[in-house]
Amino acid sequence: MDVAILLYEGLTALDAIGPYETLTLLPGARVKFVARERGAKRTDSGALALVADYSFAEVTSPDVIVVPGSSNSTRSAMEDAATIQWLRAAHETSRWTTSVCSGALVLAAAGLLKGLKATTHWAAMPFLAAFGAEAVQERVVRQGKIVTAAGVSAGLDMALYLAGEIAGAEAAQIIQLIMEYDPQPPFDAGSIGKASPSVVESARHEMARLSASGAKAS
Amino acid sequence: MDVAILLYEGLTALDAIGPYETLTLLPGARVKFVARERGAKRTDSGALALVADYSFAEVTSPDVIVVPGSSNSTRSAMEDAATIQWLRAAHETSRWTTSVCSGALVLAAAGLLKGLKATTHWAAMPFLAAFGAEAVQERVVRQGKIVTAAGVSAGLDMALYLAGEIAGAEAAQIIQLIMEYDPQPPFDAGSIGKASPSVVESARHEMARLSASGAKAS
Repeated sequence: MDVAILLYEGLTALDAIGPYETLTLLPGARVKFVARERGAKRTDSGALALVADYSFAEVTSPDVIVVPGSSNSTRSAMEDAATIQWLRAAHETSRWTTSVCSGALVLAAAGLLKGLKATTHWAAMPFLAAFGAEAVQERVVRQGKIVTAAGVSAGLDMALYLAGEIAGAEAAQIIQLIMEYDPQPPFDAGSIGKASPSVVESARHEMARLSASGAKAS
Repeated sequence: MDVAILLYEGLTALDAIGPYETLTLLPGARVKFVARERGAKRTDSGALALVADYSFAEVTSPDVIVVPGSSNSTRSAMEDAATIQWLRAAHETSRWTTSVCSGALVLAAAGLLKGLKATTHWAAMPFLAAFGAEAVQERVVRQGKIVTAAGVSAGLDMALYLAGEIAGAEAAQIIQLIMEYDPQPPFDAGSIGKASPSVVESARHEMARLSASGAKAS
């Protein structure tokens, strides 16, 4: 079973790495990092690069597709003709097509979310409707073979859900234990509904700054 | 404030990327991926490489050190003289020295955990005592400026704790909201105490297989 994780310049690393770490433990899965061209892709902070071992031409019919988001470069992925073309074609034969964070907007730009419920990062939520999707504020949303996840860290929950659907609950639980995914965040501010108004306002401000500034470093 | 995240051949990606994604959002932080030599380092599955932009010689006195673990290559980091030397020297002047997963064994091999409480991945727990550390089965353990985290995904909780200590609770909560870290795993099998006996047994078996086989792919 081929799992294709899309890489592009400016992606958010954890959007891709949460599902990677989970799905690479799935029995029989072969994870492939795929990009328009092979090679190192810089993440949105500028401080890291992830290497794509495969080009689009080399992975045309993956079983699972994972599309990560970005704090500042989602639009460039949405507007890249080769990316949209690869995604549409790969989706035709995929068993699962998934996104994390603003990666949902890339699915939307490819026309895959029309008339469907979907989720994304809370700050990207207003943009889903423009593509005919129904924005839903949930951690993981499934519509047929399409599964969208909320922001950044939600890719872990999405991939664990997917592992359960693909290989069964016991196999998914083995993966969860190997990753010791027993989350105990020291604060409880991970969603709009749980964070204080001042935290929400500051986070909105910071996300606007990140989005406007492009890559933070280098 | 310089945050140095150690990379080496065979590391577990999420061990490094959880803290990276968290700490890169810390006001004033500059995250640097550091390795013995610059360049791409393959992760333990073989399916991905992360690029180190800096060599040990270029980052000698980081404020924060993060040491990730590995499912099959921790020992090579523990036995690498250059790594141990860099870690000992950097620890002399660091404000925080931290580990995720079996990264604690690298701290231990450098002699940094003698007489201290520490945690690590549940499967690596028995090895801590050999280095004079007191193994504690907790998510995050702090002893002075040393903070160790449990397996793989625990780096998220550790880094968020660290963000709170460094920049205050409000700043950490802003980061948590930007990462939408509101975990909702679909199963509750993330620790030895919560998983069923058959899941624990299978996970032990799978970890032994991963450890013995070296990198899974390529």
